Amino acid sequence: MATHGTDEAIASFETSPEKYVHWKLSFDGPVARLAMDVQEEQGLRAEYALKLNSYDLAVDLELADAIQRIRFEHPEVRAVVITSLKDKIFCAGANIFMLGSSSHPFKVNFCKFTNETRLGIEDASAQSGIKFVAALNGTASGGGYELALACDEILLIDDGNSAVSLPEVALLGVLPGTGGLTRVVDKRKVRRDLADFFSTLAEGVKGRRAVEWRLVDQVVPKSKFTQVVDQRAAALAAKSDRPPDGKGIRLTPLQPKVTGSGVEYKYVSLKLDPALRVAQLLVRAPAGPAPTDGAALAAEGADSWGIRMFRELDDALLRLRMNHLEIGTIVIKTEGDPKAVLAYDAFIATNRSHWLVREVLHLQKRVLKRVDLTAKTIFAFLEPGSSFAGILAELALAADRSYMLDDPKRPVWLQLGPLNAGALPMSNGISRLEARMLAEPQRVKEILSQEGAFDAESALAAGLVTFAPDDLDWDDEIRVALEERASMSPDALTGMEANLRFAGPETMETKIFGRLTAWQNWIFQRPNAVGERGALTLYGQAGLRPHFDTRRT
Amino acid sequence: MATHGTDEAIASFETSPEKYVHWKLSFDGPVARLAMDVQEEQGLRAEYALKLNSYDLAVDLELADAIQRIRFEHPEVRAVVITSLKDKIFCAGANIFMLGSSSHPFKVNFCKFTNETRLGIEDASAQSGIKFVAALNGTASGGGYELALACDEILLIDDGNSAVSLPEVALLGVLPGTGGLTRVVDKRKVRRDLADFFSTLAEGVKGRRAVEWRLVDQVVPKSKFTQVVDQRAAALAAKSDRPPDGKGIRLTPLQPKVTGSGVEYKYVSLKLDPALRVAQLLVRAPAGPAPTDGAALAAEGADSWGIRMFRELDDALLRLRMNHLEIGTIVIKTEGDPKAVLAYDAFIATNRSHWLVREVLHLQKRVLKRVDLTAKTIFAFLEPGSSFAGILAELALAADRSYMLDDPKRPVWLQLGPLNAGALPMSNGISRLEARMLAEPQRVKEILSQEGAFDAESALAAGLVTFAPDDLDWDDEIRVALEERASMSPDALTGMEANLRFAGPETMETKIFGRLTAWQNWIFQRPNAVGERGALTLYGQAGLRPHFDTRRT
Repeated sequence: MATHGTDEAIASFETSPEKYVHWKLSFDGPVARLAMDVQEEQGLRAEYALKLNSYDLAVDLELADAIQRIRFEHPEVRAVVITSLKDKIFCAGANIFMLGSSSHPFKVNFCKFTNETRLGIEDASAQSGIKFVAALNGTASGGGYELALACDEILLIDDGNSAVSLPEVALLGVLPGTGGLTRVVDKRKVRRDLADFFSTLAEGVKGRRAVEWRLVDQVVPKSKFTQVVDQRAAALAAKSDRPPDGKGIRLTPLQPKVTGSGVEYKYVSLKLDPALRVAQLLVRAPAGPAPTDGAALAAEGADSWGIRMFRELDDALLRLRMNHLEIGTIVIKTEGDPKAVLAYDAFIATNRSHWLVREVLHLQKRVLKRVDLTAKTIFAFLEPGSSFAGILAELALAADRSYMLDDPKRPVWLQLGPLNAGALPMSNGISRLEARMLAEPQRVKEILSQEGAFDAESALAAGLVTFAPDDLDWDDEIRVALEERASMSPDALTGMEANLRFAGPETMETKIFGRLTAWQNWIFQRPNAVGERGALTLYGQAGLRPHFDTRRT
Repeated sequence: MATHGTDEAIASFETSPEKYVHWKLSFDGPVARLAMDVQEEQGLRAEYALKLNSYDLAVDLELADAIQRIRFEHPEVRAVVITSLKDKIFCAGANIFMLGSSSHPFKVNFCKFTNETRLGIEDASAQSGIKFVAALNGTASGGGYELALACDEILLIDDGNSAVSLPEVALLGVLPGTGGLTRVVDKRKVRRDLADFFSTLAEGVKGRRAVEWRLVDQVVPKSKFTQVVDQRAAALAAKSDRPPDGKGIRLTPLQPKVTGSGVEYKYVSLKLDPALRVAQLLVRAPAGPAPTDGAALAAEGADSWGIRMFRELDDALLRLRMNHLEIGTIVIKTEGDPKAVLAYDAFIATNRSHWLVREVLHLQKRVLKRVDLTAKTIFAFLEPGSSFAGILAELALAADRSYMLDDPKRPVWLQLGPLNAGALPMSNGISRLEARMLAEPQRVKEILSQEGAFDAESALAAGLVTFAPDDLDWDDEIRVALEERASMSPDALTGMEANLRFAGPETMETKIFGRLTAWQNWIFQRPNAVGERGALTLYGQAGLRPHFDTRRT
């Protein structure tokens, strides 16, 4: 098992269609086509070849980018066909040799990102009127089938050969890591005993049985495949509420300035303190007035604060997760004019029916979910000059703890706005304010109805912040908090935070991140998968069969 | 890290009050008192001492037994006070040296059992009118506080010293393993940031703050502690619907015959096939008529089929889990007269308002939940002479797969009855039939309304069984199924089954077993906890501090 760390770092999480290596993105009126054509030798690392449309993070970064761009750059797109350019192969899933040669943290972070990308597909379907057709022109196995499961409809070619399968348990001794088990029984509602059989069948299921078992929606003869795919895409597109005459905005490169001590963006500043194992994430409020309407937002384009800041924050979070494993705690700070944040929020809340405003809101929501799902401690520090208002107050509410300076001479304010009332749900479907007030749900309304800002004393009394030290105590208290956190087991903290952050209801999304992912992480540690003679380690080595510790746990 | 296996086997899971070593059970009218007084040197293994009312499985087996006996033997009990006989100590939780010297499978099985015991306390409160007061006469840390969390009310003595705490993260690098994190935020609805602080604070929280943070219900001065505990117990008892004049039945010893090849009970027969890694669990239908009413059931006592068979099944499951780690698959078979099962079910369904009948039903429910939560593959074989009717049909519905012989010359029947319609919910709150029919919920009613039994063909068509091979295929098909299952990674199967069995809604119970336990299992594998310099390994070794791999995953 590889245990390298820094050589798994990702230079950039950004890409754009003209740079795509593994996907062909094309447009035909309201229907976009995303065709997978993975280039074997162009994976992130040289030690594996991406055969049979198997993928690594490079492939998935392009997919995530394409979905994002369809949302922002192509409002005319109402349906997306996801297919492959390889003969008889849709996608073979995550590359096994990549997984086998990756460190445990990389495997876990890789699966988390691919899960977020697939949940992003479902978010585009549920929120943006973009429906997805998985056109399986060949076999979809493992992560390939899991990608299909994230789509609204799955069409499988009936060529006597092509099947859908989740062969991970049978062949690799691990779980399908991208929501497969959950989506099979919870989204597609495949009967649990059929799901059991299917999930242990390396060769998968094809033809009529795949439809009867609800694994796919249709099997289509080869001769009619293209025609039926086009029909289904057109039918789904017809139901969309996207504007036929909308004009997209271009998502321009973020061009962060990356140095050894951090990353500088326009609105976000990431500073690393490896000795303390802390990163400071500073988020700035808008510098100017909010757009007046959807058209004005479109004119500002990707530089508009509500887009740019959140794309920067997203990029910073991915860097923290994958490139800075040594960082255990993220300290979130804000600065700037709270009124400017609230004005931008009011603009979003008032103009939600405009397609681009809607996209911005859901981008913001997804990035804030990425905060919740980041396996690092999050502390928010509310200090003089900070701007925890409206959507930036969500960062304080997302934190594991928040510290607000209580100093009458230098008052600090926290203020809620229209977006804090449910527009930005967590993965469990409720707002961060609701998750915080589970014991007294009626207080959510009371708090939201307060006019004006909370000072430290009233924020503490309302339960909006954890601690409000005074000027004398502040330095010591936050120093001790950061040092203590750094002294604890990183694994225990990850597990603790994953349990405490998501009280209340559960959704398919929390099932995937809470239940499925935790089991997968466990299995990813077990010698039966990753030991010298584990199934994942030995996969593809002719003549070598895995050796299992047969004790059932 | 110890990796022994067979020397962790448990000779017997049965006990009874006259044999208790670690608990004193006493009665005062409607109030029972369960006082913990752990005997340091009388743990299950010699290599640790159970200091400070810390516990191992021996202690918890007594606790589980006591709760069960209060339900069946003491219908007059309406409230239970759980307290300790040690000065200034309520309970220090699971013994760390026991955990540190236990194998991974033992740790996981130990936590599962203690979780089931605490959920059993909550079941008695919710279903049987037995309310629990945790009378914390001293500090309750870790599993000690988790035991209190399972009670209806928590009273903490206010002696300036006694606190509640979850010190696992800070001191041991693991999670509280018995539902603590989940119950803190989901049951007691402690605000998530306060829960974060509390769960990293080794010394815990005491006094007024413990009440304000919802960690306990009251802090009570030492001088009034006994008086207030009695008052609260009396107040809770007053609301119970248990019969003041009920006469309990004695839970007699099961006296199984244990041999190298299996375990023989009266109604249950467990046969081990270690070579194939399969255990056959045969369950027999009642041999005689069902009781006619509650009084008749009381006259039959613990030998009545509905009590005895389920106690035997429960014992067999615990043996399979903890003593037969090499067994990967349980094959469930039944035999006897299906009419006798349905008659017993009808008796239960008709007499649910009788306190003892109610207890029987909830015992049956809990044992069936133990089936669902057992980390082994479960196959049901429906063969000629079998008796998968009514409550025994739940065993087929609980199985990961079921095979029903389709042979016109030797017909096999599956029949549902009144208890299959929701009286025996799974941990996720829905029936096994509902969990099976998530895609077509209206079919639940249709299936339940069918008069008479399903033959193989109609059971297959109705989706009640997985496969119905004919006489020619039967032997080969089940042989291949068992061999294939035995060839797969035991860990991957455990994770897969944990995900596929619980589709649909989530409850605090599924959160504990799905989310919390999976994270704990992961952490229990990590070098940061169990490695040579892991926190759990080094705990209590003066001068040795754990060494953490600081990469956050």
